[in-house]
Amino acid sequence: MMMMRAGLHAVRAFPSFSRSPSGHSVSGVLQIQGFGTQWKSPSAFQSLRPFSKVSLWPFNTQPKDFSEPNDSWSPEMRKMYDKYFALCEVEAEGGERETEGGEKKRAPWRKLPSYNRALKHATGGVYLSKVIQTKARLFTRNIEEEGAAFEYVVFMNKQEKRCVCIFQSGHLLEGPPGHVHGGAIATMMDSVTGTMTGYLSGPVVTANLNINYRSPIPLGAVVLIHSALDRVEGRKTFATCKVTSIDESKLHTEATVLFLSVKLGSFFGA
Amino acid sequence: MMMMRAGLHAVRAFPSFSRSPSGHSVSGVLQIQGFGTQWKSPSAFQSLRPFSKVSLWPFNTQPKDFSEPNDSWSPEMRKMYDKYFALCEVEAEGGERETEGGEKKRAPWRKLPSYNRALKHATGGVYLSKVIQTKARLFTRNIEEEGAAFEYVVFMNKQEKRCVCIFQSGHLLEGPPGHVHGGAIATMMDSVTGTMTGYLSGPVVTANLNINYRSPIPLGAVVLIHSALDRVEGRKTFATCKVTSIDESKLHTEATVLFLSVKLGSFFGA
Repeated sequence: MMMMRAGLHAVRAFPSFSRSPSGHSVSGVLQIQGFGTQWKSPSAFQSLRPFSKVSLWPFNTQPKDFSEPNDSWSPEMRKMYDKYFALCEVEAEGGERETEGGEKKRAPWRKLPSYNRALKHATGGVYLSKVIQTKARLFTRNIEEEGAAFEYVVFMNKQEKRCVCIFQSGHLLEGPPGHVHGGAIATMMDSVTGTMTGYLSGPVVTANLNINYRSPIPLGAVVLIHSALDRVEGRKTFATCKVTSIDESKLHTEATVLFLSVKLGSFFGA
Repeated sequence: MMMMRAGLHAVRAFPSFSRSPSGHSVSGVLQIQGFGTQWKSPSAFQSLRPFSKVSLWPFNTQPKDFSEPNDSWSPEMRKMYDKYFALCEVEAEGGERETEGGEKKRAPWRKLPSYNRALKHATGGVYLSKVIQTKARLFTRNIEEEGAAFEYVVFMNKQEKRCVCIFQSGHLLEGPPGHVHGGAIATMMDSVTGTMTGYLSGPVVTANLNINYRSPIPLGAVVLIHSALDRVEGRKTFATCKVTSIDESKLHTEATVLFLSVKLGSFFGA
């Protein structure tokens, strides 16, 4: 048995991120989710091809980015999105973009796309039937109705090794009457912190998730989920996470999360 | 602001539990979820009426118990269900039922029913719109398609202050490719442990949830979630939880959970 922990995380995106709603660069195939910018050289990325070429997309269209604004977003949600999206603009100086190590200089913040499917060819022993392989959907993106469950978008600041997620909770996430389920909050904290860590450290799985619930989140509310990388010790990455009101005056939840780096092939056959 | 924590828990059931699939005693109104057997006297239960009389059920039918077996259950799931259900039979002695404090003697195990709605009249400030109040669904029971997400049933052993949940993970709970999302596991651990604690200690909310992920759960697998009450210190209840394979040979996840007792009215108006 491989030594793996539940909860593989990394950026569910391409090495080159689209930085505007219309800036998709994805076509033809739905790529592996979870293997982000840490492989920047073409040769390193080349080695991903055996997995990344698996086509889940029968048409030559782009997979949906679920973190784009939609009609279910409240004005509050949209306002926060616009605020962070504005921080993703390239900082032009004198009309020209500077380069840095051969790359175009970018603003410190960028929006990460979000898809609803992991790779279909994965280990799962006898349990993973063909039906499950075909129908499997990412837990946080498993409901078609916009606004019903998890509406969220993650903005990453690589320089400061932190990210901010804007999260609007839908009516299907109820726990205590009129409030968000503790498990839904745990899910978002795990996902956001894992996405950040995957972005910064490569593929990781969650080893420990320690959550303190400070005050409940009303169902329907928009909140911010702040996550920051604390330190890296060998295979271990320690991160922190907190959920606050959008003006950051109220602390809802806080957590520490320990991730373990895993090899790329861990979940894809022996 | 009230001092509340996210994650209200208690038995989502009536004081009198149905102990066979056909033994419903529910009719007419959908009761508050989460206020269980701790109020056994009629007068104490009477005080719940202002809330419990709220009718979400326009017809004189019974709310659906989502923990009853359905066609999506695998043979493994059904076999475990039958095993624990057999432990719920009354221990008849000499053909007669003994009484104990005026109640019929029962077997130590009983199956808890599971509904998909909390009370609609709950606090939620400006966030809780009428739409959300009407459409809100319990996070773990929010998907109509049988077998797609969380299929589970909880068996409680009051005497031993512990419970066992049989959990079959559906294809919409994916995290790492082919495996259950860490947040979905957290959700089940929080829910099961909270249900047990609510059953034993009255209404509680989750204050701390500390999870160690030991080995991933394949999507579609059936696992057992064992929860036990550790100790009570004033308002605090400490509980433990672990997720194992159905033969209990493999440990997938373990957690400690701290709950705080709350007053009944916490979530219902000021």
